[in-house]
Amino acid sequence: MRTTRRDIIVRYAETDAQGIVHHANYLIWFEEGRSDFLRQQGVNYSDFEKSGYFVVVAQAEVKYRAPAFYEDRLSVETTLEKMRGKVLAFTYRVCNQNDDLLAEGRTVHVVLGSDRRPASLPAELTDPLRWSESDE
Amino acid sequence: MRTTRRDIIVRYAETDAQGIVHHANYLIWFEEGRSDFLRQQGVNYSDFEKSGYFVVVAQAEVKYRAPAFYEDRLSVETTLEKMRGKVLAFTYRVCNQNDDLLAEGRTVHVVLGSDRRPASLPAELTDPLRWSESDE
Amino acid sequence: MRTTRRDIIVRYAETDAQGIVHHANYLIWFEEGRSDFLRQQGVNYSDFEKSGYFVVVAQAEVKYRAPAFYEDRLSVETTLEKMRGKVLAFTYRVCNQNDDLLAEGRTVHVVLGSDRRPASLPAELTDPLRWSESDE
Amino acid sequence: MRTTRRDIIVRYAETDAQGIVHHANYLIWFEEGRSDFLRQQGVNYSDFEKSGYFVVVAQAEVKYRAPAFYEDRLSVETTLEKMRGKVLAFTYRVCNQNDDLLAEGRTVHVVLGSDRRPASLPAELTDPLRWSESDE
Repeated sequence: MRTTRRDIIVRYAETDAQGIVHHANYLIWFEEGRSDFLRQQGVNYSDFEKSGYFVVVAQAEVKYRAPAFYEDRLSVETTLEKMRGKVLAFTYRVCNQNDDLLAEGRTVHVVLGSDRRPASLPAELTDPLRWSESDE
Repeated sequence: MRTTRRDIIVRYAETDAQGIVHHANYLIWFEEGRSDFLRQQGVNYSDFEKSGYFVVVAQAEVKYRAPAFYEDRLSVETTLEKMRGKVLAFTYRVCNQNDDLLAEGRTVHVVLGSDRRPASLPAELTDPLRWSESDE
Repeated sequence: MRTTRRDIIVRYAETDAQGIVHHANYLIWFEEGRSDFLRQQGVNYSDFEKSGYFVVVAQAEVKYRAPAFYEDRLSVETTLEKMRGKVLAFTYRVCNQNDDLLAEGRTVHVVLGSDRRPASLPAELTDPLRWSESDE
Repeated sequence: MRTTRRDIIVRYAETDAQGIVHHANYLIWFEEGRSDFLRQQGVNYSDFEKSGYFVVVAQAEVKYRAPAFYEDRLSVETTLEKMRGKVLAFTYRVCNQNDDLLAEGRTVHVVLGSDRRPASLPAELTDPLRWSESDE
């Protein structure tokens, strides 16, 4: 099992009139965590697309525990939970500098080939990720 | 049970490099559906805040079935699933003009008082919503 | 000269911690006005892209006069100021229901061919817009 | 004159169906550069708001020179051009790793007091910025 951490500083544009971060931004931060997870394994998602594969989001869920505020320094922890054939799943935890858990979530992804139908990623793209898959 | 429909035309800014709508926008459309649901019951969420109540998102989930594209005309169907004390839950369906289901989801909300602690909404704010609550 | 009006209701996600609409959203509303302007002349921007043309934003400016708030009903007025060869320019005014001017702006666009170099749009795409060009 | 640099990695959510970054995001990056500029002078914009001052955007302009793509590593250079009484102006340059200039821009800001009327910032908030003001 492998978890990566990506640090983020909350942008003013990410807040809303409640004075806290708007809840949709957590999906964007999860994606940021996911991109960074891949980069840390030496894989760029852009390479997937150049090889003719799209990875689309099939499912997303978020549990919001506590609010985040402008200029908060957060860390997004990303774990590859599962990678089986055409399906990948990641889990996430967003914490602030006091280590309060602000949100946790999960996304499920389906790999599509250039014909936009489900396809398995070739070994050259998945091998660097194999060893980092969660063991649960 | 009461379901409202809100029509939306996909904005260019809502698309991403995959050529389809970025998945985080569905949470924004759900919120748009929710705002419109309340307005159709004669309630404005701004009134909640003026009365000192905040309704925060505690949970969100989306299942993505098919992509949406720039300029697609979509409808967001919003249903009030539950309203018990300090908790509200809504469900959503996003369809395109061919009546293809593109996404469905659910959000759970908690009511906070001006002290930012869970609180029950006063009857004057919930009464207009009572009859529209889902029965299932 | 031709001006179109597009009505918009401010989304909660468009507000920020100042309690007003975040200033970047006006560029998105201008784009929404522009898309609608074209649709009202019987042209879809998607048709440009299908014919191998991209229209990219080369310049944007906004003057902010007064704030907009959640659930405000706004109108975006869009005018085609100029269409010369490879360059288009639009101007915008955003007003609220009291006819207060909230913002005004201008965007300049360059047409690119499929080789991503500046190109002139073919007559079949520009003819429907000719008569609506501003006269000033 | 003082210029700060803030590094940014382009998020997938910031791209659009043209395959490049959507133009509205540059205003968000300018704001990110501005926040970072202030932090580097030991000032937090949150402190302005806690002291009862809002700094609102009165004007924004962007010239787009070349596109940015997903995962590009960019730097946002922010310069305080002017700080006179109730008005601040900043200029920005966004470059990629090849030092190509992708965009440049300028924002003008007005300081409002707690009564939402123009006000001058107190010396304790502006003094740390004085020396960093642009000379040209």
